[in-house]
Amino acid sequence: MQRALNVTRSANFSEWYQAVVRDADLAEISPVRGCMIIRPWGYGIWELIQAELDRRIKATGHENCYFPLFIPLSFLAKEAEHVEGFAKEMAVVTHHRLKNIDGKLVPDPDAKLEEPLIVRPTSETIIGDAFQRWINSYRDLPVLINQWANVVRWEMRTRLFLRTTEFLWQEGHTAHADEAEARDETLTMLEVYRSFAEETLAMPVIAGEKPENERFPGAVNTYSIEAMMQDGKALQAGTSHYLGEHFAKAQNIRYQDAQGNLTYCHTTSWGVSTRMIGGVIMTHGDDDGLRLPPAIAPRQIVIVPMLRDKPEDAAVLDFTDRLAKALMAQTAVGAPIRVLVDKKPIKSAEKRWNWVRRGAPVICEIGPRDVDNSNVTFMRRDRLRDGDKVQSQALAFDAFVAAASGLLEEIQANLYAEAKVRLDDNIRSDITSFDDLAAYFGAAKDDDEAAEFKGWVKVAWAKPSGDALEEVGQRLKALKLTLRNVPMGQTTPTGVCLFTGGAAVEEILVGRAY
Amino acid sequence: MQRALNVTRSANFSEWYQAVVRDADLAEISPVRGCMIIRPWGYGIWELIQAELDRRIKATGHENCYFPLFIPLSFLAKEAEHVEGFAKEMAVVTHHRLKNIDGKLVPDPDAKLEEPLIVRPTSETIIGDAFQRWINSYRDLPVLINQWANVVRWEMRTRLFLRTTEFLWQEGHTAHADEAEARDETLTMLEVYRSFAEETLAMPVIAGEKPENERFPGAVNTYSIEAMMQDGKALQAGTSHYLGEHFAKAQNIRYQDAQGNLTYCHTTSWGVSTRMIGGVIMTHGDDDGLRLPPAIAPRQIVIVPMLRDKPEDAAVLDFTDRLAKALMAQTAVGAPIRVLVDKKPIKSAEKRWNWVRRGAPVICEIGPRDVDNSNVTFMRRDRLRDGDKVQSQALAFDAFVAAASGLLEEIQANLYAEAKVRLDDNIRSDITSFDDLAAYFGAAKDDDEAAEFKGWVKVAWAKPSGDALEEVGQRLKALKLTLRNVPMGQTTPTGVCLFTGGAAVEEILVGRAY
Repeated sequence: MQRALNVTRSANFSEWYQAVVRDADLAEISPVRGCMIIRPWGYGIWELIQAELDRRIKATGHENCYFPLFIPLSFLAKEAEHVEGFAKEMAVVTHHRLKNIDGKLVPDPDAKLEEPLIVRPTSETIIGDAFQRWINSYRDLPVLINQWANVVRWEMRTRLFLRTTEFLWQEGHTAHADEAEARDETLTMLEVYRSFAEETLAMPVIAGEKPENERFPGAVNTYSIEAMMQDGKALQAGTSHYLGEHFAKAQNIRYQDAQGNLTYCHTTSWGVSTRMIGGVIMTHGDDDGLRLPPAIAPRQIVIVPMLRDKPEDAAVLDFTDRLAKALMAQTAVGAPIRVLVDKKPIKSAEKRWNWVRRGAPVICEIGPRDVDNSNVTFMRRDRLRDGDKVQSQALAFDAFVAAASGLLEEIQANLYAEAKVRLDDNIRSDITSFDDLAAYFGAAKDDDEAAEFKGWVKVAWAKPSGDALEEVGQRLKALKLTLRNVPMGQTTPTGVCLFTGGAAVEEILVGRAY
Repeated sequence: MQRALNVTRSANFSEWYQAVVRDADLAEISPVRGCMIIRPWGYGIWELIQAELDRRIKATGHENCYFPLFIPLSFLAKEAEHVEGFAKEMAVVTHHRLKNIDGKLVPDPDAKLEEPLIVRPTSETIIGDAFQRWINSYRDLPVLINQWANVVRWEMRTRLFLRTTEFLWQEGHTAHADEAEARDETLTMLEVYRSFAEETLAMPVIAGEKPENERFPGAVNTYSIEAMMQDGKALQAGTSHYLGEHFAKAQNIRYQDAQGNLTYCHTTSWGVSTRMIGGVIMTHGDDDGLRLPPAIAPRQIVIVPMLRDKPEDAAVLDFTDRLAKALMAQTAVGAPIRVLVDKKPIKSAEKRWNWVRRGAPVICEIGPRDVDNSNVTFMRRDRLRDGDKVQSQALAFDAFVAAASGLLEEIQANLYAEAKVRLDDNIRSDITSFDDLAAYFGAAKDDDEAAEFKGWVKVAWAKPSGDALEEVGQRLKALKLTLRNVPMGQTTPTGVCLFTGGAAVEEILVGRAY
């Protein structure tokens, strides 16, 4: 059978992922080690992610602003755990000028910075410094801000969208008068991420708290949303942190309360990044390429006119333009339908397959016969094949236009439902011993090796901390497993901890992960 | 007379500018030399600028994408003029890790980069490298892309929004099959900038070509839009460059034409930045602070309820919420009206003045008497005072809601008209000798010194180049003057060149500038 990609998910998931990124024109590696070029189709997805998430962030009372790209080295040193967590992987600016010396362009030795600058890996420290200046009285609280920015974390092994040296993200930072309000904010944003992932990306997730050893450097609690990829691995797709008074104390973020006492603020931070696009690919893609949920498809309906350099081309183009216009006057998933008539001077079959690979939700192919019958022949990307055969349908012009909105809504719902079944069906909760866990997941394999689909296991545990948790982590690591999160809203389990044999206090997800 | 700022434009324009930036909560200096923090009100303006300009950039056929923050040093060396133009002022990344040595965090000597990376001052070289890979055939052309990004140019003297080490901008980059198409693109984007500045920012500009000595490093032609600030100085608010084959030859950007010949592309680039916000401040601000054109006002109508901790507060809040709701259901200048009810627990007079300083186009103050009479008392920020006295008006609730859209459109038009008169009335074209030019502008003064408003002078010149132009530049520099641009659409002047005495070929604007 012919597929639009030259590798399948089952043959080699990792190569399949790279093929989708490449063949769907999403992104490519750049000449700068570990940094990616996001191409227009990939960036168009990011713009839609940004627009909708931004709307939700603002609807929960946050305002956007912008802080410097650079962070003075001394700022990082202020919060001990924080610098420990990040110190290993940062881009360091040491000079502010180049000079031509002996015919070679080099950093000018006379332009060495007194204090090196770090390209922000995250902005807690420089934003905390501003909070310390902005906040004086309880009347100034809460401070609820967000920024869309690029950040840099030097990575040794990179993978497009999933782990790159530079990536794009939003980072929210808030300061509150007390713990209760800051905790409430942390969970509010976790819920914003959960609902956004499920409603907009059609990507079902489990929201929960990360174990102590997976916390953000300097956080009291870290929460995440975890999505299940089609190879069974977990992808952490967003995090929300309650930072307690750690950053406030390190940076002197205090306010005068109504009684006149100086009190430390409680702060939070939360972020999602271009990594989400990797999650969308591995949640919805198939062996023909990407499948995009309509809510984030830069073009939801692509119309391919079948042109043959003949006089009847004019009628075809007239028909496709009329169709595009009629469709653009409709709305679907909350916005006017995004339509493209692809008039590129290449064969229509090639164009059709390009759009299949790129994941356009609906692809219409219009030839002279459709024009004669006033018919629209179209393919649904979510149900591209009947068995091995590519299937298309036809509707009368008016009927298609009338059905378009519902069709896109149905595709959005359908992609979510498909992924939701996969998630729900692949979390085992009947494993109670470490040996059984090890046997279930089998021997660890290299990342690039084909691994059997295993999904996740939910185990009861005693929530060990410190060295005891470190030991759990090491035992799991030998199996290439990690603790993912403790799902929200659970009741205390009965039974004993799978790792320590102590009384279980909660259930935690275990799995392989990106 | 009491003003909302503690310094006036006439007393000290430079200090006035800084007072507006600070007191309108637009931006502040950061602990990182030369970098600014853009606060929510300032960033909200930038978001509206982005949204509308992005719409216009896309409407002219461009797609957004994203290229790496870093540029390998060797890339810059490829285009000789380009590196010459930028080499003096760049942030250089030399290490990718920090290390704790003797208790001090320093760049890890073992993590020195083999090749230093430059934080992009602009992206021609790294985008050109991608073009070289993307473009093979004439069928791949034109390539029309844009990116919204942060860029860094090390600046010694910085001023918020006008000249900062890091700034935000969009940079468009295009590749074309031939010169004519590339030149057409260059001028199309110049016109996009002109119309955007005038229609959206209400900032009249002169579009024209920069003289040779003011060209972008590596460009064949550079065009700009120049706006006149209230101190008479010019602000270059956007540029569009025809790059010829310079970058294509340096980076081997070639395509096979329909006949099979390998041909170099012609490229363009064009950009505007957060500098535009500085232009808006100095075009529209008055001695009470900022005045925002409604099209870029994050809140177009601000409602201040007069609360006194008394039972009637409830009725006031009910009234202001109803008013906000009714207004938000209206549209003005192309979008739903953006309304805020400012419920902050501070005195209403203080809130009113905060919004005057921030430049909200319409400010409503609602007290119990307004509620009783179902009246809306409001101030227009563009006509805040009658003489020295602050003036307000009142309309019945329904009448105000019905008038709101027209009121905002009128304020938008009014701000433009006011600035247009200033521009038109202050370009002299009757000066024909250098001595008269020198006498008109008077002795050069320090930037911060109060200077008499002079505007610009349009002079006939012979368009000298090379050393002759250099000499003109030096003579003007002694007077703190610069050549701005050669306005588009002019007819060849009669007479002689003011600088060289040769036959004049065109007219060029001369003035002081930011």
